Amino acid sequence: LMHVTWDAATAEKGGYEHFMLKEIHEQPKAIRDTLAGRIKDGLVDLSQEISLSAEELKRFDKIHFVACGTAYHAGLIGKSVVEKLARIPVEVDVASEYRYRDPIITPSTLVVVVSQSGETADTLAALREAQKAGAQVLGITNVVGSSVAREADEVLMTWAGPEIAVASTKAYTTQLIAIYLFGLYLARILETRSESELAEATEALLKLPKQAETLLEDPSAIRRFAGDIAQHEDLFFIGRGLDHAVVMEGSLKLKEISYIHSDAYAAGELKHGTLALIEEGIPVIALATQKAVYDKMVSNIIEVKARGAHVLGLGLEGDDELGKSVDEVITIPETLPLLTPVLSVIPLQLLAYYTSTARGLNVDKPRNLAKSVTVE
Amino acid sequence: LMHVTWDAATAEKGGYEHFMLKEIHEQPKAIRDTLAGRIKDGLVDLSQEISLSAEELKRFDKIHFVACGTAYHAGLIGKSVVEKLARIPVEVDVASEYRYRDPIITPSTLVVVVSQSGETADTLAALREAQKAGAQVLGITNVVGSSVAREADEVLMTWAGPEIAVASTKAYTTQLIAIYLFGLYLARILETRSESELAEATEALLKLPKQAETLLEDPSAIRRFAGDIAQHEDLFFIGRGLDHAVVMEGSLKLKEISYIHSDAYAAGELKHGTLALIEEGIPVIALATQKAVYDKMVSNIIEVKARGAHVLGLGLEGDDELGKSVDEVITIPETLPLLTPVLSVIPLQLLAYYTSTARGLNVDKPRNLAKSVTVE
Repeated sequence: LMHVTWDAATAEKGGYEHFMLKEIHEQPKAIRDTLAGRIKDGLVDLSQEISLSAEELKRFDKIHFVACGTAYHAGLIGKSVVEKLARIPVEVDVASEYRYRDPIITPSTLVVVVSQSGETADTLAALREAQKAGAQVLGITNVVGSSVAREADEVLMTWAGPEIAVASTKAYTTQLIAIYLFGLYLARILETRSESELAEATEALLKLPKQAETLLEDPSAIRRFAGDIAQHEDLFFIGRGLDHAVVMEGSLKLKEISYIHSDAYAAGELKHGTLALIEEGIPVIALATQKAVYDKMVSNIIEVKARGAHVLGLGLEGDDELGKSVDEVITIPETLPLLTPVLSVIPLQLLAYYTSTARGLNVDKPRNLAKSVTVE
Repeated sequence: LMHVTWDAATAEKGGYEHFMLKEIHEQPKAIRDTLAGRIKDGLVDLSQEISLSAEELKRFDKIHFVACGTAYHAGLIGKSVVEKLARIPVEVDVASEYRYRDPIITPSTLVVVVSQSGETADTLAALREAQKAGAQVLGITNVVGSSVAREADEVLMTWAGPEIAVASTKAYTTQLIAIYLFGLYLARILETRSESELAEATEALLKLPKQAETLLEDPSAIRRFAGDIAQHEDLFFIGRGLDHAVVMEGSLKLKEISYIHSDAYAAGELKHGTLALIEEGIPVIALATQKAVYDKMVSNIIEVKARGAHVLGLGLEGDDELGKSVDEVITIPETLPLLTPVLSVIPLQLLAYYTSTARGLNVDKPRNLAKSVTVE
């Protein structure tokens, strides 16, 4: 009987040692599935799923992203995406703060709640508060028939499939995809971007699954670095712009399953305090995928290097400069700057995974945490 | 000659061992000075300093607070204050992110930049970008004739006097006072709050210097706790609402001068990851000064206690309940919930100070940090 149970468990994990690793590797498919049926003639078309008319979409003058944990980090990317593409001001809130802070909500506010399970207690409470205050709510969720799917005015499903590991991976990347789809659709309706720009972004979106596959082929460099950081109890992530939002997610992943005290900083804030914590040998993971702030980022890397940090740089393929200022380099395939988070988070997920296994911890069920936080 | 130098230094510090301790103790006076001349007939009147007419003030439909480090934390309080009092939506940005993220700025956007020195490089660049994009800029600064004071369209001075210690204390509390003054003035002009509410808040504001004095009288409990945490390398701060913004500042203070790896969390986010880091004996400093979220906060305290954390609770005088769920309690005098940050931050400043001295570190000049970050 034990034998049968074990077989079933292995089968469930599709040959992977843990659900988390399986789910990391399912991302190309999950992204593909989330894109499927939502692009027509090279442009995003959500008219079959979102019932708001063009007139109604044009009425929104404010968007609030509200979520918890990893989904909150997706919301941070959502702010950049929607502001850049549709030029509507966006605020992002942790749901447990939003529901109690008396936010300014009007009938022209769109509240976007993001929850993998669709049952996150604080997010659900925020959804209800927002509706009571007169807002329209768009739910982004992975579970058909969940409370968010049932109660939101509009729903955009992510098609990640069941996520079993407590540390979310494919749910996050598909939340990003849903956010890009929504941003591109909104920009198309609002005509805030030219059709050729939208077509270019859509094409780049369609390339992501293949690029994610390439990225997953050889984790050996990440695995090596993980073996190194597994010896530490403290480390830091730094980034600017979209890279900052991604390092917040990478840092959370690492904390959740390796119990290393990790922190993520906007690199420009280092000089305003955190630099005091940088000492000889401390690992720093620095993202430098955003060309517009690349030089500033390299300056920050040089600052932490000068204090003795051991730096892993994550940059774009073809970047021959980054290696000169860091100790180790990992690259991701190039895509539009706005889309890089989908790719740059993958090495960080793998880093958390391999660090946890190097420490011999329970990857799929970390201490103190539950998969869905359905109580407050 | 050495002897003379030493005498001069002691005299400069007004009998205190370090500039930081002197500056912490100067806060009642600094707050009083920053309030002086700005309250007439029991209501805030900034018409002598802010040249924007009522019509112009009424035109703003969006406010951005932009700053770095400690001043950014003041901006976080600014969001709550302005949204609550004047019901204008507020965004808060780290200056090094804001200037590169192509923020949505219109002629009806007011950008409030906050900088003690008035020379912070990223903040100054953000000020200039905002003006170029057509926004009006209000500068909150402590230095007359500084770049921010000269270049901002409107200026609200803090009257903290010279701040020498790298870790900012009296600059922060006076920035909060300037923000309250601005919020109350705006609410008065916009008529978003009744005159009696405004009078009540103004009266509470005037009581703060005396309350801060009381709070500074006996630091023995804080000093004891500092001796304990000085033995640790990691700890956490938690809070909800305004307490969350305050713990971010408390955590920064501790990092800057004690080099303890400290992190501040929105307490409701613990279950979404960070709870994995809570283990036997780890110090957690929990703020519970906000009545509206008090019960939720106590639940979070019980969660970390259950995982073995050693908890210092900071609550309001007369709160006899808090002691039941924490290991040690510190209280602050009661004021309006919106004004508590001015008082609740003081024990956290003292905690950082005494932890740093217990570790024998250079309190006034921590490693790697400069007083004003005038380069990027």
